[in-house]
Amino acid sequence: MKTAVLELLKSHRGDFVSGEQIARDLNISRTAVWKHISALREEGYRIESRSRRGYRLQGVTDLLVPGEVLTGLATRFCGRPYYYYPSLVSTNNTAKELARKGVPEGTTVLAEEQSGGRGRLGRNWYSPRGGLWFSVVLRPPLHPARGSEATFVAAVAGAEALHNYLKTAEIGIKWPNDFLWQGKKLGGILTELTGEMDRISYLIIGIGLNVNLDPHKFPPEINARVTSLRQIVGRDVDRAELLRRLLAALEGWYLVWREDGFAPVRAAWKRYNACLDRTLRVSTPEGELVGQAVDVDLDGALLLETGGRIRRIVTGELFLEGDVG
Amino acid sequence: MKTAVLELLKSHRGDFVSGEQIARDLNISRTAVWKHISALREEGYRIESRSRRGYRLQGVTDLLVPGEVLTGLATRFCGRPYYYYPSLVSTNNTAKELARKGVPEGTTVLAEEQSGGRGRLGRNWYSPRGGLWFSVVLRPPLHPARGSEATFVAAVAGAEALHNYLKTAEIGIKWPNDFLWQGKKLGGILTELTGEMDRISYLIIGIGLNVNLDPHKFPPEINARVTSLRQIVGRDVDRAELLRRLLAALEGWYLVWREDGFAPVRAAWKRYNACLDRTLRVSTPEGELVGQAVDVDLDGALLLETGGRIRRIVTGELFLEGDVG
Repeated sequence: MKTAVLELLKSHRGDFVSGEQIARDLNISRTAVWKHISALREEGYRIESRSRRGYRLQGVTDLLVPGEVLTGLATRFCGRPYYYYPSLVSTNNTAKELARKGVPEGTTVLAEEQSGGRGRLGRNWYSPRGGLWFSVVLRPPLHPARGSEATFVAAVAGAEALHNYLKTAEIGIKWPNDFLWQGKKLGGILTELTGEMDRISYLIIGIGLNVNLDPHKFPPEINARVTSLRQIVGRDVDRAELLRRLLAALEGWYLVWREDGFAPVRAAWKRYNACLDRTLRVSTPEGELVGQAVDVDLDGALLLETGGRIRRIVTGELFLEGDVG
Repeated sequence: MKTAVLELLKSHRGDFVSGEQIARDLNISRTAVWKHISALREEGYRIESRSRRGYRLQGVTDLLVPGEVLTGLATRFCGRPYYYYPSLVSTNNTAKELARKGVPEGTTVLAEEQSGGRGRLGRNWYSPRGGLWFSVVLRPPLHPARGSEATFVAAVAGAEALHNYLKTAEIGIKWPNDFLWQGKKLGGILTELTGEMDRISYLIIGIGLNVNLDPHKFPPEINARVTSLRQIVGRDVDRAELLRRLLAALEGWYLVWREDGFAPVRAAWKRYNACLDRTLRVSTPEGELVGQAVDVDLDGALLLETGGRIRRIVTGELFLEGDVG
C-alpha cells in the first residue's frame, strides 16, 4: 500500500494531491495515508505537505530505497527480499549473516556506502556514497568445487547489464573478477561460499561498481587506475535502473548456469573478456609470470602461454600491458 | 600453575596433601592454592578437603576438561586453544563462530554432549554424554575446490588413531566420511568450509565417535546400525587419551596434505577403506546405482563399476552388502 501511495504521488508529480483524494482512490483511511507518507519520508523521499492542498512529491530520491528499486524489478527471486541500509561495514558480511539465518535464495543486501568494503584476498574496497555496493545470496545445489564458477556467472551478468544499459561495448572483464573500461577498474566481484564437503550451503555474490563517483576523489594510491560510469558517460546514471538490470541479468545467468552448466557461461565470458590474446604480467603465489593469455579452461583457470608452454593459473592477479598497477 | 597443582595432587593420588605443602612446593601463596583448587573443582575435578589434612583428588574426572586433555598433548597447534563445553548445540557451529572471529588454526571445540549435532546433508547426529564430539578449525591456503579432500585427511587421521589405540585393524572408512566396525557405524566426519573464490578462509573438521556408549540405547531407527568403542573392546576407554591421539594424528596428516598434496592421503585412505572391491548400492541425487567400488579418484570421487562402465560418484550415500540402512 505504501508503494501504491508512492505511485499515486508520482502520477501527480509536481502537483499537490489531497490526503482525502489519496484515501478515496486507494480505499484507505486518512490516518493510513499519513502513516504511509511518514514511512516514505523515512526512506528518503522528499514529500512536501501543505494544509488544504495535500501532498506533493519533490523530485525522486536518489537513494536506492526499496520503493525505488522494487518498482519495475523484473525478477522472480533476485532482489527479493531486498535489505536496504544507508551504511554497512560490508554488504557481503551482512548477507552472510542473513544466509546463516536461512534467508531464501535471491535475498539482496545493499548499502549506500561501506565502511569496510572488501575486495579479493582481504583487500580494502573503497565504497563511498554514489556507487552500487550490493550482495546477493544464492543456494545452488552444487559441489563446492564449482563455487568459483559463480564469479564468472556474476561477471557475465554484470558485463551484459552494463553493455545493454550504456549501449557501449567497451566494458570488459579482467580475469577473474574485475570490470574494466579502457584498462581502468570500473568495479569488481567478491564471491564467498560456505558449504559441506559435497554441497554448497550458500554463495554470496558481492558486486561493487563505481557509478556516480569522481575517480580523482579516490584515494591517491588507486585513483589513476579507476574509472566510473559518471566518467564514462559524462553524467550521473540512474542507479536504481542499473541495479534492476544487474539483478535481472544475474538471475538469468544464474539459471543458465544451474540448468546448463558452466559451458555457456564460459562462452559468454570469453566474448566479454578484456584479457585474452593479450600479453600480461601475472602475479601468483609461486611468483611472477609474463605471457599471453590464451584461454580460460573448463574450471575457470586462466591458461597463460609463456616460454612456449601453457601454464594454468588458478589464483593470481593480472596486470595488462601498460597497466601501472 | 593450576595444572601444576593438579599434577601435584595426582602424584599424591589417594593421599591428602596439605595446602601448606602445595604452597611451599610450588612457591605460591595459600590463597593462590585455594583459588586453583576452586578452579579445578569448577572444571569437574572432585577434590576433597579436610581441615588439618588438606586436599585429596578423588579419582580422575571422566570429563574432557582442559587439564585432562592438554596434559600430554603432543601437538604444535591442534587442540590449541581448546574450548571445552559441557553441552553445545553443535561443536561445528561454535567452531564456525570462533573461526569467523579469527581464532588461529588448530583451535578445537569439544562438548560432552550436543543438543543439535549434525551429520552430512543436514541430518541429525545423536550425540549424548560418553561420546567424543569435537571440531577443529583449519586454515589451509588452498583453493576451495580442494576442500573436500579435508574429509579424507580427517578420515585417515581418525582411522590411524583408532588402529593404534585399539590395536585392531578392523576399523574401516566408508566413503566418504564414516568410520565402520563390522559394517556398523562407529563415527563420522562433517567437514564444512568457507572461502572466497580462490582461497579457503577456514575449514571446520567435525569428528564424532561413539565411545563409551551402548548402541542399544540409541534411537530405535538407528540402533541396529551403530556400534561403539565400549562395545568393541568390552570396557570403557580413556576418552582423553583417545582425543589426544586423534588431535596428533589430525595435525600430522594435515601437514602431509598441505606439504605433499592429496596423493599420500589418498594412498593411506585406500589402506583403511572398507568399501573398495565390494558390491555396493549407492544412492545419488540422480538415482540409485548398484555396482562394484573400484577406486577413489584424484579428486576424491568414488569410481563405481556398474554394467561394464565406470561411474564417477561425487555425492552419494553407500550401502554395503547386507546393510540394513
